[in-house]
Amino acid sequence: MSDEPATEILEATYYILSEHGYADLTIQDIADEADTNNSTIYYHYDSKDQLFVALLDKLFEQFADRVNSPEGDTPREQLDTLLQILLTADADSDRNKFRTAMLELKAQAPYKPVLRERLTEFDKFLCEQLREILATGMATGEFSETIHPASVAEYLTATITGVHTRHAAINQSSDRLYTTMTRYIEEHLLADKQTEIE
Amino acid sequence: MSDEPATEILEATYYILSEHGYADLTIQDIADEADTNNSTIYYHYDSKDQLFVALLDKLFEQFADRVNSPEGDTPREQLDTLLQILLTADADSDRNKFRTAMLELKAQAPYKPVLRERLTEFDKFLCEQLREILATGMATGEFSETIHPASVAEYLTATITGVHTRHAAINQSSDRLYTTMTRYIEEHLLADKQTEIE
Repeated sequence: MSDEPATEILEATYYILSEHGYADLTIQDIADEADTNNSTIYYHYDSKDQLFVALLDKLFEQFADRVNSPEGDTPREQLDTLLQILLTADADSDRNKFRTAMLELKAQAPYKPVLRERLTEFDKFLCEQLREILATGMATGEFSETIHPASVAEYLTATITGVHTRHAAINQSSDRLYTTMTRYIEEHLLADKQTEIE
Repeated sequence: MSDEPATEILEATYYILSEHGYADLTIQDIADEADTNNSTIYYHYDSKDQLFVALLDKLFEQFADRVNSPEGDTPREQLDTLLQILLTADADSDRNKFRTAMLELKAQAPYKPVLRERLTEFDKFLCEQLREILATGMATGEFSETIHPASVAEYLTATITGVHTRHAAINQSSDRLYTTMTRYIEEHLLADKQTEIE
């Protein structure tokens, strides 16, 4: 826990959101978890929605750090690093927590434009990272010149989103999908495609 | 509205869930919407969770009807019909309603084993439909003999799930993804693959 009250409040919100969900979450629960009181929370955040916006901003910052400029000597390696970051680690409880909290917030988005706006930024950021890697790989000749980077990036973004939804909601392995997605990239996107599929 | 009280209650629950979300939903809201009272609801359903289980069972029945044995003379055509059913119709308010309600229920699944169980059935049913079509198409020679039907079926299921999540949460077009997915199938799964990609 940080010694910044606002940070402690956000950490408590994140914890409760991922452990118990949005539906039963009250400001009092957050106050109890952060060892503070309701008025301190309202001093920092005007409303419950503002608290969730601040949480999403913080999660976005961390997500952007994690996903930005993935390691790798080539675009193919960078794409693989990115997919490893995003899809593996089923057993990592921090990832589980993140995916569950994000699913909770996504389920609020249809009724809360401020949350929808932030979640759209998340989505765009990921899509753009993928598109850039694909476009760079096309320029270097590593990815096939016949792919359409923006469409493939959106397709991968949709799949990653679905893997996270399935993992958080019904506990379906994301590691397995990482393997299938890697195979798809090898067969479908690389300039020098593999011809045989296991 | 049906004249069966239990059905009316489920319809009211579905309506409120997709219009206002799970978080603020009370039995009183459902009673008001169904033009009945709390005790009638509790006469039919022991708890709020039981009501959602009954709703999921009903939605599953309708989903299975819609998705079962898709029309088409060949597996490729059947797959296309299925993807059209699942991915097009962004503007269809019934589809929007369904996707939003499902996202609400998925967000409850991490904390409610009975809901998770039902949602797992949905997922398995779709996966199995896709796997069967792919396997039949491999047997007839329409799909490439190098594909692995179970993995591809799960990959498509993850993507479809992601398309629905993105559509309900951040209003991203599912029609566009239908086009990309169709292209993926043509390039990647058919025995007689297209070589040029737009």
